[in-house]
Amino acid sequence: MKFSLSQEFVAELLGTLVLILFGCGVVAMIKLFGANPAIPGEVVMGGYTNIVLGWGFAVLMGIFISGTISGAHLNPAVSIALAATGRFPWAKVPAYILAQLIGAFLGAAIVFAVYHAKWMGVDPGLTSTAGVFSTFPAVPGFWPGFLDQVVGTALLMGLILAIGDKLNNAQGSAWGPLAVAFVVMAVGISFGGMNGYAINPARDLGPRLFALLAGFKNLGDLNVWLVPVIGPIVGALVGAFIYDFAIGRPLARAGEAHVGVQGVDPEYNAAR
Amino acid sequence: MKFSLSQEFVAELLGTLVLILFGCGVVAMIKLFGANPAIPGEVVMGGYTNIVLGWGFAVLMGIFISGTISGAHLNPAVSIALAATGRFPWAKVPAYILAQLIGAFLGAAIVFAVYHAKWMGVDPGLTSTAGVFSTFPAVPGFWPGFLDQVVGTALLMGLILAIGDKLNNAQGSAWGPLAVAFVVMAVGISFGGMNGYAINPARDLGPRLFALLAGFKNLGDLNVWLVPVIGPIVGALVGAFIYDFAIGRPLARAGEAHVGVQGVDPEYNAAR
Amino acid sequence: MKFSLSQEFVAELLGTLVLILFGCGVVAMIKLFGANPAIPGEVVMGGYTNIVLGWGFAVLMGIFISGTISGAHLNPAVSIALAATGRFPWAKVPAYILAQLIGAFLGAAIVFAVYHAKWMGVDPGLTSTAGVFSTFPAVPGFWPGFLDQVVGTALLMGLILAIGDKLNNAQGSAWGPLAVAFVVMAVGISFGGMNGYAINPARDLGPRLFALLAGFKNLGDLNVWLVPVIGPIVGALVGAFIYDFAIGRPLARAGEAHVGVQGVDPEYNAAR
Amino acid sequence: MKFSLSQEFVAELLGTLVLILFGCGVVAMIKLFGANPAIPGEVVMGGYTNIVLGWGFAVLMGIFISGTISGAHLNPAVSIALAATGRFPWAKVPAYILAQLIGAFLGAAIVFAVYHAKWMGVDPGLTSTAGVFSTFPAVPGFWPGFLDQVVGTALLMGLILAIGDKLNNAQGSAWGPLAVAFVVMAVGISFGGMNGYAINPARDLGPRLFALLAGFKNLGDLNVWLVPVIGPIVGALVGAFIYDFAIGRPLARAGEAHVGVQGVDPEYNAAR
Repeated sequence: MKFSLSQEFVAELLGTLVLILFGCGVVAMIKLFGANPAIPGEVVMGGYTNIVLGWGFAVLMGIFISGTISGAHLNPAVSIALAATGRFPWAKVPAYILAQLIGAFLGAAIVFAVYHAKWMGVDPGLTSTAGVFSTFPAVPGFWPGFLDQVVGTALLMGLILAIGDKLNNAQGSAWGPLAVAFVVMAVGISFGGMNGYAINPARDLGPRLFALLAGFKNLGDLNVWLVPVIGPIVGALVGAFIYDFAIGRPLARAGEAHVGVQGVDPEYNAAR
Repeated sequence: MKFSLSQEFVAELLGTLVLILFGCGVVAMIKLFGANPAIPGEVVMGGYTNIVLGWGFAVLMGIFISGTISGAHLNPAVSIALAATGRFPWAKVPAYILAQLIGAFLGAAIVFAVYHAKWMGVDPGLTSTAGVFSTFPAVPGFWPGFLDQVVGTALLMGLILAIGDKLNNAQGSAWGPLAVAFVVMAVGISFGGMNGYAINPARDLGPRLFALLAGFKNLGDLNVWLVPVIGPIVGALVGAFIYDFAIGRPLARAGEAHVGVQGVDPEYNAAR
Repeated sequence: MKFSLSQEFVAELLGTLVLILFGCGVVAMIKLFGANPAIPGEVVMGGYTNIVLGWGFAVLMGIFISGTISGAHLNPAVSIALAATGRFPWAKVPAYILAQLIGAFLGAAIVFAVYHAKWMGVDPGLTSTAGVFSTFPAVPGFWPGFLDQVVGTALLMGLILAIGDKLNNAQGSAWGPLAVAFVVMAVGISFGGMNGYAINPARDLGPRLFALLAGFKNLGDLNVWLVPVIGPIVGALVGAFIYDFAIGRPLARAGEAHVGVQGVDPEYNAAR
Repeated sequence: MKFSLSQEFVAELLGTLVLILFGCGVVAMIKLFGANPAIPGEVVMGGYTNIVLGWGFAVLMGIFISGTISGAHLNPAVSIALAATGRFPWAKVPAYILAQLIGAFLGAAIVFAVYHAKWMGVDPGLTSTAGVFSTFPAVPGFWPGFLDQVVGTALLMGLILAIGDKLNNAQGSAWGPLAVAFVVMAVGISFGGMNGYAINPARDLGPRLFALLAGFKNLGDLNVWLVPVIGPIVGALVGAFIYDFAIGRPLARAGEAHVGVQGVDPEYNAAR
């Protein structure tokens, strides 16, 4: 199937909007309703486990929405790494990144609207809940968070490619989107502590820009803004090149056709 | 396969009954057994995470029961939105809604019977546990809950259609019911706080009517009754039209046949 | 494929042994290691959520082991209900039930051996931990637990048949065992409080007999022994007949062949 | 497809590295960030449930990376048991074990690097957090942990073979890697208390050697080092032979071809 760039733009925007709706939504649930889990008689709201499950579901839903039309990158680092390894045309990358940023910004706005009445009760000055929208480091400085984001996004990107290659073989395509959701859950449950596992520049920058415009305080210093933008791009490139070196090329040499990778522009792929 | 409307009525009723058995059942577990999770030596009963998992499983089980015969709407808002977008005959909508309401009412009655002996120990006056059956807002008033229900149900309906379209493509039909269960878990984990994520008029109104007849107190004011009925219907329409505009029509124009959507009356669909 | 009754006996015994290893194992984890989840600095051991997940995995593993050879009933109530609805030969039922009871007894013995060193530290008199092996009611008496077991096992049995029928249609057979595991998780998360969701006479009686021989105290009065034996048998019959009435026969009349139901003796089925 | 031993070596090393990244990563999350889950206002970090989910995901990711090229043993006990039952050439076993140990060592090093800044705040003397890397017994001595490791790894190995045989039948290959991940979650949730469920000599020894070199204290006595190495090897042999006796041979005699077992060297298998 062939889609116009404007159709892909709309799909990628809507997919990222849905990603952020569910993703920032689950953090809002924990931050606004679950602050004190030990009150007797109250339902325990869940904690980090819910955040991990919620962001994994969020990615799954974004793929359901946009997978067929735009390839469901939902993440500038993924678009860039796919382009850098010849899987996606560089010419489309700016439009995809713009769609991702706009979708993430709008998703954050809707989350704020849905939870507004509760928010005004919990944090009326908007001084302590910017973490609903964006990530913050556990340790100050550039390098700890940067290393965390590089490792986390390298795993994300390498595994997206691995799952895509898997899909070529068996009937694995049936649950490819779920496999990618499990990757995001795995990165979150194992690497979410140091810097909040943005592993996606649009997921972090779009909502942080909304939070700035909405009047949230304590949005962080320059490191806080830059790490989840630069780290994921570097990490996705690292992951894609390691994957291609250790797994992708041996598979290709063994005669396996590399087509239909999940997260890859189908039209472009078919043309190779 | 062709089924009579009475066969569809029975299947839809039984599917919704099973949905409510599991769904109100898990809330009963938390409300009646899990009020105080921090007692040393006691098994921690789980909390909101269990409710999220339980309602997702509940939808899965309802689909297992009624998916083939009735299409497993289990939700008046889904039936209405499918009809409004030409995917289901309007003539069947009243019978489906009636089946859903009766099934939900009977499911609530069975939950009350199963947990009755424990209930009399925890809340003998039936003054504080109506939340087992129906949803309550976190913030009083119409608009906060209404907005929450519109957004949550728009996501539910858009994603049901997206999963259905996905099913046409690949082997995804193998786990379509599980994908829908994940949607319900995602809405619950990310949007359950403001109004309890009814996202289904029958799921809320049927058990609330049972609770009224069974003598439960504190069932809420008019807003509490109306929001989970009106909000989901508006939301399902919004979600279906956004999906068709942004994703469904581009896919259709790209030459993809729109058949076999999960949750759609198979006979009607085949006739289009 | 054709197997001898002794091959089926061994498979059914081993499948039930594995079921009980994982199932009683997870309860041992919670009872022996997780009694006090709030100690600062300690890893929180999880609670009822883990028990629900663990028993679901346990059933999945039992099906992996014995599904092809014996059909993985793992439960006398399932064998009886399959026989009563013409899906399994009555002549094999006694051998299957014996295999299930022996497997459950041996599984309990291995769990006791694995955890013995810890057990002697936590409950050296074996006075308070029989709940690792068998279920206990939340409210004394016969009827509350009996009703709970009937409802829970009716859901189990009806859904096993529904999943089996589903399997005939689409590609759903790919994850049929996982669907059955989700049913068990759903029953546990929504109906585990009143009587511990045995929903399986062998799962409860086999380990309770082991506990008696091993010297455990406080194994319960006659009701405690009988409810998880009688209730599941009645419930499985109720569930199977409701399923056949509301769903199975309409499907059959609509021309759908009823073959290959998960949990059904393949050879007998093929002969019908 | 045919791969060189050096390609298999690299794939097995990278797969085990990814296994340990996610696996030791999730323990680092709990040990470094989640020590005190009851602080009001803090997000609850999760506990043992997260560790169980995280290690299951870790195995899934390792299979995604290395499944096609090396067969994704990721575990010396698996390689040895596959060789002992004629499913994998003995000549390759030393190279596989070396790759697994190096991968595990490097994975542990990367986890230490990612979490280093936080680690220095929590345990600057490296005296109390070696448990991030390796397992420790709940009860001192050789036999309790040894029995636990034998039972846990017998279940792992028997079920890997059962899932592989299942794959030959139906469409189950689509989710074979997920089924193996569920086995690891099941062993962890039901048998993780006595000795930390290494069930894999490389997973335990590789990171423990890294911890020794990195200067960690309190790495345990000889039993602590030996049990997770010897126990899993014995257990995998026990599990493989029981599986072949009770299930595998009856299936083979019934005319079912035993090919394509997940976790088995494809080339060798094809040559049999």
